[in-house]
Amino acid sequence: MRLEWDFPWGLFRAPQTNQHNHRYSHTRNHGRRTDPPREHFRPCQHCRHQVRRHHQGLPLSTNTTIPSPHAHSLTPHQHRYWGKRDTKLNLPTNSSLSVTLSQDDLRTHTTASCSPDFTQDSLTLNGKDQDISGARTQACFRELRQLRKDVEAADDSQPKLADLKLKVVSENNFPTAAGLASSAAGFAALVRAIANLYQLPASPTDLSKIARQGSGSACRSLFGGYAGWQKGEKDDGSDSLAYEVAPASHWPDMRACILVASAEKKDVSSTSGMQATVATSALFQERANNVVPKRMKAMEKAILDRDFEAFAVLSMKDSNNFHATCLDTAPPIFYMNDTSRAAVRLCDAINDAAGKVVCGYTFDAGPNAVVYFLAENEERVAGTFKNILGDKTGWEGKNIKSEVQVPEGNEVAVESLKKGISRVIITSVGDGPRKTEEHLC
Amino acid sequence: MRLEWDFPWGLFRAPQTNQHNHRYSHTRNHGRRTDPPREHFRPCQHCRHQVRRHHQGLPLSTNTTIPSPHAHSLTPHQHRYWGKRDTKLNLPTNSSLSVTLSQDDLRTHTTASCSPDFTQDSLTLNGKDQDISGARTQACFRELRQLRKDVEAADDSQPKLADLKLKVVSENNFPTAAGLASSAAGFAALVRAIANLYQLPASPTDLSKIARQGSGSACRSLFGGYAGWQKGEKDDGSDSLAYEVAPASHWPDMRACILVASAEKKDVSSTSGMQATVATSALFQERANNVVPKRMKAMEKAILDRDFEAFAVLSMKDSNNFHATCLDTAPPIFYMNDTSRAAVRLCDAINDAAGKVVCGYTFDAGPNAVVYFLAENEERVAGTFKNILGDKTGWEGKNIKSEVQVPEGNEVAVESLKKGISRVIITSVGDGPRKTEEHLC
Repeated sequence: MRLEWDFPWGLFRAPQTNQHNHRYSHTRNHGRRTDPPREHFRPCQHCRHQVRRHHQGLPLSTNTTIPSPHAHSLTPHQHRYWGKRDTKLNLPTNSSLSVTLSQDDLRTHTTASCSPDFTQDSLTLNGKDQDISGARTQACFRELRQLRKDVEAADDSQPKLADLKLKVVSENNFPTAAGLASSAAGFAALVRAIANLYQLPASPTDLSKIARQGSGSACRSLFGGYAGWQKGEKDDGSDSLAYEVAPASHWPDMRACILVASAEKKDVSSTSGMQATVATSALFQERANNVVPKRMKAMEKAILDRDFEAFAVLSMKDSNNFHATCLDTAPPIFYMNDTSRAAVRLCDAINDAAGKVVCGYTFDAGPNAVVYFLAENEERVAGTFKNILGDKTGWEGKNIKSEVQVPEGNEVAVESLKKGISRVIITSVGDGPRKTEEHLC
Repeated sequence: MRLEWDFPWGLFRAPQTNQHNHRYSHTRNHGRRTDPPREHFRPCQHCRHQVRRHHQGLPLSTNTTIPSPHAHSLTPHQHRYWGKRDTKLNLPTNSSLSVTLSQDDLRTHTTASCSPDFTQDSLTLNGKDQDISGARTQACFRELRQLRKDVEAADDSQPKLADLKLKVVSENNFPTAAGLASSAAGFAALVRAIANLYQLPASPTDLSKIARQGSGSACRSLFGGYAGWQKGEKDDGSDSLAYEVAPASHWPDMRACILVASAEKKDVSSTSGMQATVATSALFQERANNVVPKRMKAMEKAILDRDFEAFAVLSMKDSNNFHATCLDTAPPIFYMNDTSRAAVRLCDAINDAAGKVVCGYTFDAGPNAVVYFLAENEERVAGTFKNILGDKTGWEGKNIKSEVQVPEGNEVAVESLKKGISRVIITSVGDGPRKTEEHLC
């Protein structure tokens, strides 16, 4: 059993206030309720007098949980994050956009807590202890602690949390497969959870600068809907931050069907890949300097205009453009495989059969296809894939009709998909991180 | 039985003279000797008086056979032929280089003949009649006939061959698989055979302008060794021609191991692919205008310096750069598949294990890998692939040792190659078209 402090959640879009309005509850931990051990009873350091009055001897274990959605840079791979102008600060060579997917379907659930009982900072992902000695994780911890110290310095009544060790526990509700951008969502959730634990008065944009140092794309994951990441110009990275292009409610009928390719270990980590691309691709500078800036503007306009055709065409073009620069790296980086090629062929065939652009694909740093479509074309797009992949997991509860015929002449691609796709995820554009009472620690 | 005229063969590198020094022979046709039918006996129009004197009533069936090597643009894919500035004239948007492979291993054997008995022009490839109504084939026939007409107009004693119908019979000694550049070798052989039949005083460079109109890359196939194709600047294509960078004898120890991928139909024909790339790729102009010109110079230098490392690195980079622009096409063009990726990984691993660049790959418009190496590294490179693919055809008579261990950690790639490669071709740099007495018709 753990006695928990739950801090109230500010609206994430507005700077959080320093209001101290916590709640005390006895909750079950792992379903088993026990009395707190004697040694846990200490004076609360958060708000000494209130706690003393109401909950004498509470353990100093504070806890805040973030179910963070996946805003993996699905959409505008055309504005994809790849190539860093500064490795340490994770500063990108080009701006980028992303669509945040619904956390009902793709979610990283993270609880952050701190306590004098903790002897070291720790991070657990899906039940496994993670190495947090890396510069990226350390940078996030350090920056968040510094902000907390600022809060504590400005207000002497604030409990001294910054000096306590942190315990972060994280779980994904999807397989941590290659290319599902789990590190981006993971760092976003970590930063959001600790920021809430610390009650930092930081906006999502402020926090995006910290999350960026953990995993570049994480900065966008602090937003819901359609988010951008401006590359910034300054050497210290202070203007390389995320912003909202439009909330999910602006264009809520955006849907995605993710075709998850059978697990195959990535042979190049994203970071070394990125650096090699910048250093060796003869085409990368053209992409970063000319291709992306133009498409970035066009994509923002497509989103604001709710112009699906432009959105889809730009997504496909930019995904291919991005993977072209990967292939142009020495040694070449291949993320797309034969299964990915089959998904591309099927999307083209679905659009051809429809006589208009009803779907658009994009590929992250892995073989999984993310196929976008509007709710009105669900049967035509997702239904076609269900016709092919109906025996895979992921269709349950989605009620997608699959009476659409697979366009003819795609037998090879169909066979390749049946063989190479292990599961599907049907989802839609969603909101940013939100509060939950389901604590993981 | 056919009574045949065999014209002597000029050296292909020098302009051919109009010397008329033919030979008359009774030869077997398809192994069966019969007397010529009466209606075939006519006065020879080639050299009326000599023939009359010696061979009264010879049939006017002239015949010239070209075993043409494959100079498919294997090497400097970095200077690969892709993208046309003029579709009709097959004018490329960038210059290119190629290595001519030994015709002992990869050969197109072509016989051209003309006769008043022929009622129409015809072309047979591997026993099958081909459609010759296409503009490309017609352009080759037309231009060669025009040159013959010039010869006949300048010298009244010349037999009137230009008005006779042509019969061209061609056979490849390798499977007409996707991506083995059979059309390039085919058109080169066709042009060379007809030019010799017509005794044209045209140099290989002159003929390259005609072959180019049949199939762009064919222009280089008229040369042996290391050949270039300058893109030219003129609208009429008169300066878009092939030239010799170095003969095979300059760097004779160049070897190639071609990994032929299991037959899979190409889903985009090369021509439509090229045009789509020029029209839609955001990276193609960068490649054509900046990347290729620099690498073209570097590659010519590598060949002249016999610098294998530079040669191999440039080959790999340019192959990847070329395929990157294919991928950046809308819709994307994929020639490399998972088997190709495995070949790339193995080459990288072989070089890593050697601690230096001992092999370089390149991919044409198909999944087949062409792996270059020097004779001194045969065991290390070809031997490694033999260790993996020893049960495929193509190793017979090549006496390649295969005691080299496959570098560790490449199990996935090894499995992929075993599954995806159907045969290998071990070959070397070779000479240009040469004469043969083995007539196909």
